[in-house]
Amino acid sequence: MAKLKGNLLYGQSGGPTSVINASAYGVIQEARKHKDFIDEIIMMKHGIRGALNEDLIFVNEQSEEEIELLKHTPGSAFGSVRFKLPDFREDDTNYLRLLYIFRKHNIRYFLYNGGNDSMDTCSKIAAYMKQVNYECYIIGVPKTIDNDLPFTDHTPGYGSAAKFISNTMMEISYDMLAYPNGKVTIVEIMGRHAGWLTAASAIANVGGFGPDLIYLPEIPFSIDKFKKEVSEVYDLKKQCLVAVSEGIQNADGIFISSSSGLRDAFGHFQLGGVASKLATSVSSDLGIPSRSVEFGSTQRAASHIQSLTDVNEAIEVGKAAVRAAINKKTDLMVIMNRVSKDPYKIEYKLHDLLLCANTEKKMPKSMINAKGNGVTQEFIDYVMPLIQGENTPQFSNGIQQFSKFRK
Amino acid sequence: MAKLKGNLLYGQSGGPTSVINASAYGVIQEARKHKDFIDEIIMMKHGIRGALNEDLIFVNEQSEEEIELLKHTPGSAFGSVRFKLPDFREDDTNYLRLLYIFRKHNIRYFLYNGGNDSMDTCSKIAAYMKQVNYECYIIGVPKTIDNDLPFTDHTPGYGSAAKFISNTMMEISYDMLAYPNGKVTIVEIMGRHAGWLTAASAIANVGGFGPDLIYLPEIPFSIDKFKKEVSEVYDLKKQCLVAVSEGIQNADGIFISSSSGLRDAFGHFQLGGVASKLATSVSSDLGIPSRSVEFGSTQRAASHIQSLTDVNEAIEVGKAAVRAAINKKTDLMVIMNRVSKDPYKIEYKLHDLLLCANTEKKMPKSMINAKGNGVTQEFIDYVMPLIQGENTPQFSNGIQQFSKFRK
Repeated sequence: MAKLKGNLLYGQSGGPTSVINASAYGVIQEARKHKDFIDEIIMMKHGIRGALNEDLIFVNEQSEEEIELLKHTPGSAFGSVRFKLPDFREDDTNYLRLLYIFRKHNIRYFLYNGGNDSMDTCSKIAAYMKQVNYECYIIGVPKTIDNDLPFTDHTPGYGSAAKFISNTMMEISYDMLAYPNGKVTIVEIMGRHAGWLTAASAIANVGGFGPDLIYLPEIPFSIDKFKKEVSEVYDLKKQCLVAVSEGIQNADGIFISSSSGLRDAFGHFQLGGVASKLATSVSSDLGIPSRSVEFGSTQRAASHIQSLTDVNEAIEVGKAAVRAAINKKTDLMVIMNRVSKDPYKIEYKLHDLLLCANTEKKMPKSMINAKGNGVTQEFIDYVMPLIQGENTPQFSNGIQQFSKFRK
Repeated sequence: MAKLKGNLLYGQSGGPTSVINASAYGVIQEARKHKDFIDEIIMMKHGIRGALNEDLIFVNEQSEEEIELLKHTPGSAFGSVRFKLPDFREDDTNYLRLLYIFRKHNIRYFLYNGGNDSMDTCSKIAAYMKQVNYECYIIGVPKTIDNDLPFTDHTPGYGSAAKFISNTMMEISYDMLAYPNGKVTIVEIMGRHAGWLTAASAIANVGGFGPDLIYLPEIPFSIDKFKKEVSEVYDLKKQCLVAVSEGIQNADGIFISSSSGLRDAFGHFQLGGVASKLATSVSSDLGIPSRSVEFGSTQRAASHIQSLTDVNEAIEVGKAAVRAAINKKTDLMVIMNRVSKDPYKIEYKLHDLLLCANTEKKMPKSMINAKGNGVTQEFIDYVMPLIQGENTPQFSNGIQQFSKFRK
């Protein structure tokens, strides 16, 4: 097989995770090992948008210190984007521009790091480059805290988010124990369609302090059932900790968090989180003091409590993508197979990009309890290995250090 | 001076901090050193309420492992309470009960760990015991994340909350950089009357990624000024990170977070956080995408990112309280004096309890910038030493371990 020498183009897309930059680190380290295939490692600024605008970052112009810090830097060190490419058969404007940039910079290896939509972009570019006979090997690098990519045991980013969520739920739970007559605390967790993140709150119960009730988007949400279940717990314990997904929907598929047409102090329409709505309902209907907590973007950005397992796997998927590309594999996404449960062992494989792009992996019924308000041991057994180990943050002067890349 | 031999009674009161249990640890370690003064160390369950109900925890019945874990356990390991004692001259019912319990258990040393209200309780008990000539030495142990106790340079609990807030703000800030066209993110931070916690978000800027605007309760809040300042930042940077205190008030002293009489999806009155209200205002009035984050109780319970300086100081105030009590000091609170700025050095002194109880320390004008939307270098110099060092969490199987005490 004739070696193809050229440059590697890498980009990040979609919502950041606390370990997506660890995948970039893996890409850089592996690519540097293959100088006979790869001359330059080029990063797109803000994903595909950076390629279209020729807004590029050259790794060889960066300091080693900044590159090492990628393992501890949350967000997207190279910038992300939400950009949907049209079908090139309908509109090839962006594709022609990409082809020009690819040719200009002799891009022969293209790696795109993201979730479902990013894999769709990646797949479309692969199809186009094939159509125009431009030799370029295109591999998708998975990431998403939502853990909703198919064909892979889990996604890089999920383990660290799960570690933050479970440890913070433990803290909230222990904090609640302080008072003899407690409150109902409702914690809103990300995940609009899949409950993986919200389910991770159940790990806190392994530590002895966790949520009493967990509501997932996979199960139609009933406000009456919710109030009944909260009352039962509160009557028993004089407090209740609830984990709820931002994506819970009623039987008609309507998001509980949908804008309810109400106006706030300034007379504006309020969007309102689901947790605060449920807390209000508990206070008003049940007369039980209630409060809400929304983790918001902290749960995907908490670099200070990363899972070392997650960080290492994020690095490995980046490395596997480089190896696949130089071995002339294309139009594929790196996936993780759990080949052994005990001891936990992962193998890195490849799977058709288009299939990865257009399927959303929800929690299987077997991981959700019969009452639809918690998880099963099967889920706990699945998730525990993913939060193991700590990637000790790089504190300096009491605060973390993050990568700063030069243009 | 004749030695007084008896038992020590300790309790926790008010809102927990992530290091109040470290003070309990200090009390236990120091008390054990003085067996010639102290026979038994007894903890009240849920503060003063535990004494009134004779609901007590005996330290000598606990395992050393649980006692060591106090240094890593958030919340109130012995339970807290919000309980205001009446003036004993008006109603001495509770006092007579306390006297009975003190006599029954030969309590000669009484330590109460809390904020302003707890110091008030402590002071009233001291006055009563003096009045009835029951020899007992009563010392207040300070704690509060709000940092609003007077006469002390700062309070145990503040440093760890500041460390969580500043590091999380850095993460949110870096996360925001991901997108070319960002949002206005508004983060709500605790502190109803004093801005110390919200101001701590400014530490994130020392790390290079922090809030653009900071609104404190010390400065009357104008929605128009807020919108103008947010617009200016957004026009320049295409994103804006705002830290806002839950306690901001308008010129008439009305909380912006006050219930606005609006109803939610369930038809109930909504209490609504200030951040979500301001985010709605930014979206509606300025047409800029905006979102809100509420740290809620996570900021006072985040044991996974404690400041080692804070933990050690929390232990020391506990120890200092024991030493004061056995030296027949009473009706006093332990305070911390910063005797040297560089190197940072604290001395532990004592101050009149009643004075500590009835004053609330707000941020001085000299620590707030001229525009009233940020802090000065004086504040940064003040706060940085308080977040130094990490008290590495005790992870087991990927999650923290917290104390479990037996009744």
